[in-house]
Amino acid sequence: MSIQSKLKQLKQIYAEITKLDQISCLVSWDQETYMPPKAAAGRSEQLAILAKIIHQKNTSPQLGQLLQVIYENLDQLSTSDQRFIRQKYRQWQLNTRFSSDFVSLWSSTTSQAIEAWKIAKAKKDFSLFAPFLHKIVDLLKQKTQILGQPNNYDALLDYYEPNLTKSIIDPIFEDIKTATKQILANVPDTHCEKFITPIKWQKSFTQKLLSIIGYDFEAGRQDQVAHPFMTRVGDNDIRVTNTFHTNNLSSLFSALHEGGHALYEQGMDLEYIQLLTDDERSLVIHESQSRFWENIIGRSEAFWRPLFVDMQTDLPEVFGKMSLEEFLSKINIIKPSLIRVQADEVTYNLHIIIRYEIEKMLIEQGLKVNEVPQVWNQKYQEYLGVMPAHDGEGCLQDVHWSIGNFGYFPTYTLGNVLSAQIWNYYKKQNPNYQDILNQQDYPAILFWLQKNVHKPGTLTGALELVKSLTGEDLNAGHLIDYLENKYKT
Amino acid sequence: MSIQSKLKQLKQIYAEITKLDQISCLVSWDQETYMPPKAAAGRSEQLAILAKIIHQKNTSPQLGQLLQVIYENLDQLSTSDQRFIRQKYRQWQLNTRFSSDFVSLWSSTTSQAIEAWKIAKAKKDFSLFAPFLHKIVDLLKQKTQILGQPNNYDALLDYYEPNLTKSIIDPIFEDIKTATKQILANVPDTHCEKFITPIKWQKSFTQKLLSIIGYDFEAGRQDQVAHPFMTRVGDNDIRVTNTFHTNNLSSLFSALHEGGHALYEQGMDLEYIQLLTDDERSLVIHESQSRFWENIIGRSEAFWRPLFVDMQTDLPEVFGKMSLEEFLSKINIIKPSLIRVQADEVTYNLHIIIRYEIEKMLIEQGLKVNEVPQVWNQKYQEYLGVMPAHDGEGCLQDVHWSIGNFGYFPTYTLGNVLSAQIWNYYKKQNPNYQDILNQQDYPAILFWLQKNVHKPGTLTGALELVKSLTGEDLNAGHLIDYLENKYKT
Repeated sequence: MSIQSKLKQLKQIYAEITKLDQISCLVSWDQETYMPPKAAAGRSEQLAILAKIIHQKNTSPQLGQLLQVIYENLDQLSTSDQRFIRQKYRQWQLNTRFSSDFVSLWSSTTSQAIEAWKIAKAKKDFSLFAPFLHKIVDLLKQKTQILGQPNNYDALLDYYEPNLTKSIIDPIFEDIKTATKQILANVPDTHCEKFITPIKWQKSFTQKLLSIIGYDFEAGRQDQVAHPFMTRVGDNDIRVTNTFHTNNLSSLFSALHEGGHALYEQGMDLEYIQLLTDDERSLVIHESQSRFWENIIGRSEAFWRPLFVDMQTDLPEVFGKMSLEEFLSKINIIKPSLIRVQADEVTYNLHIIIRYEIEKMLIEQGLKVNEVPQVWNQKYQEYLGVMPAHDGEGCLQDVHWSIGNFGYFPTYTLGNVLSAQIWNYYKKQNPNYQDILNQQDYPAILFWLQKNVHKPGTLTGALELVKSLTGEDLNAGHLIDYLENKYKT
Repeated sequence: MSIQSKLKQLKQIYAEITKLDQISCLVSWDQETYMPPKAAAGRSEQLAILAKIIHQKNTSPQLGQLLQVIYENLDQLSTSDQRFIRQKYRQWQLNTRFSSDFVSLWSSTTSQAIEAWKIAKAKKDFSLFAPFLHKIVDLLKQKTQILGQPNNYDALLDYYEPNLTKSIIDPIFEDIKTATKQILANVPDTHCEKFITPIKWQKSFTQKLLSIIGYDFEAGRQDQVAHPFMTRVGDNDIRVTNTFHTNNLSSLFSALHEGGHALYEQGMDLEYIQLLTDDERSLVIHESQSRFWENIIGRSEAFWRPLFVDMQTDLPEVFGKMSLEEFLSKINIIKPSLIRVQADEVTYNLHIIIRYEIEKMLIEQGLKVNEVPQVWNQKYQEYLGVMPAHDGEGCLQDVHWSIGNFGYFPTYTLGNVLSAQIWNYYKKQNPNYQDILNQQDYPAILFWLQKNVHKPGTLTGALELVKSLTGEDLNAGHLIDYLENKYKT
């Protein structure tokens, strides 16, 4: 059998795995949107069986043999296929390094930990979660060992974004820390006003926002959930979800954020995306796209100029007495706070940096799990000048650690970093960008992103993409320029 | 390994198969409820992969060996497990009789046929569907041969309801035909009035109806679709769907019908139902439960007495000027018509009998496919006194034949038959039944059904159930009594 026909055979196997992975995403989507409460236990079992079948297929000897032979004959493949095979080979090597004992221990530990975390968070008591976090940190250290980099946090970073290391992140985060400190020193202390709007209006207005930025409702939909997310449940079925609060406008920015993720998914290279599973994406590129639409576009004057007129017509009692400038200042308030997911675009990165520093301390520097709350509170006091009243609004606020996602948080801020680098490059390539913005010509921007980011970003990591696109390495300069420029007083 | 531990192992395999089958039901449910239009092609592929995996698991040598050994040692098992193993062994023998070539030919033929049927129905032109129906009838004849009963329709009946034969059906259908003719001769010709009600009201009122009959919304939900159905997508997740029309009240009766199906599913023996796939149910028992709530309860005076007061309060402009008696007569109008799914409870059975007779003619009596429209129209004229203006409202109206479901239609009328037998037995066992009805004490009725029908009906066919419950064979007597009594003039 020729390498080409072996490749065809391999792609058929991956196409099946991808479809099963999409089904798993659909089952999870239903769990968050429409599943009745008593179905929860049975649902977990359904997901576990799908995961087992996917794992079996991903680690089958047949697949391993095909991959091995094709990998040894890479030179006979097209450039894209080479990329594709390298990525799958890397993934396969990672998968096969972990014994099934380790995989099932990991799975049972995190299942228990997430339940413990929910209770601990509700009871605002870190001590209920600490023993589980302790086990997870132990397993993560074992993971670094299995991956050949004992007690090195880099091993965990690489898992979420290929080739990402502390040596790349550290200078970027230091620059951001310094710049943020300066911006915060000059920002006036402002009172956050409440916008009271009907949920029904929010639902229809967020649909409108999604349509405006180019989200295809014929290949997706928006539903209500407890915590917003985006998920690809099929090749032409990329769904966003949203959370609606009567007393703030967060759903508008969630729509733009999840919509940005979805535009990336809708713009990916279909030939390859139907061969990849949900976790085989650059998280940094993903976050760069969500943040671009949420912040760079979605908090700009040009974006809201026509929309604010509609809002004033829709809800004169809420927006009628306000000028566009007042509205813009209210959706761009910078104010240090305790909760990451509610943070503004300036202080957000400090929330991430604190988590990054604590994760490194736990994996590399011998920080004890029971010292986490103290270090957490101290860093919040130091970087943000705020102090959690309890662990529920402190180190228990995020789900990530309970499911073992160490090395994940940094990708959020690196997404901000990348979005600013891409935007800077876009402006250089399109000197008429101000006209494009003023005309709200988002199809033009989306078209450029599809060609330059979404399609090439299907099989490329963020570090490689930013270099080949802009000629620069990943760096904080453009994000800092953007923020300093926007929030200069 | 002991037989008991082999049984345990086998049950684990079946539990996995059931969960995958439930996932497949959820994926299909989403396809009908919330899937965006462009996702259709990818969705079919997802379902095909699940079907393949389920088929592989169901026909694996490991499963076959376990089943064989356990079947040879049936006497070591509990009565329920014996029943369970007999059913699975029968299913396994059926599955393994068909070559994979036959299975894939069947699958590709019916996929094409359903598309051809859709077009033919839309164009009202049977000739576009005829070549496909011809292929399907050929394959069905091959099926009877493979099943050891060449050109015998019984082989197909047995597939949907174990041990069902023409010799059981024929006298039942003859009795119904005669009795229906007499009822129709005495029924006055009435004009069907339209009820115009808002969809929003129908949605909330049907939720109320479902709650009243005991449907558990903590373990299910109701959603809007093009054609109503019920589906079990998890152990505690049994969903109903509904179709809402502004100009009639069909959604109310659909809610009771699908709700009846769902009550049966919610009442089944959990120990075994989590080991069975969606097609391993008695269709006759299922239909007896949907028809019981839709017709025997759902078109009765006692049921609507309190509800009609609510309806008059909700929508005085629609129901305010009408008495309860007038309303009851309007929802119980008997009028021969062309479309099965819109038929009343008296004429409905004639629609089924016509289909049954034509199916027998096609399989056993050499009726040619292109003669179907002529025979169809002739029988409608003869039995119902109506004549289709075109095949769209004639022999193309149902999906069943396009997916090869021959032998399925009779289970609908046998469901009516069984519902009347069960109800008759209930009344004998509960002489105070009129009080129960007058008090709308549906929990009491449901409790009795769960104990006497739902739980024992999990591993028992309709023929066996009706005999062991009532002491009688399946017979039309009680249905005819019920209809004659209700519609006597």
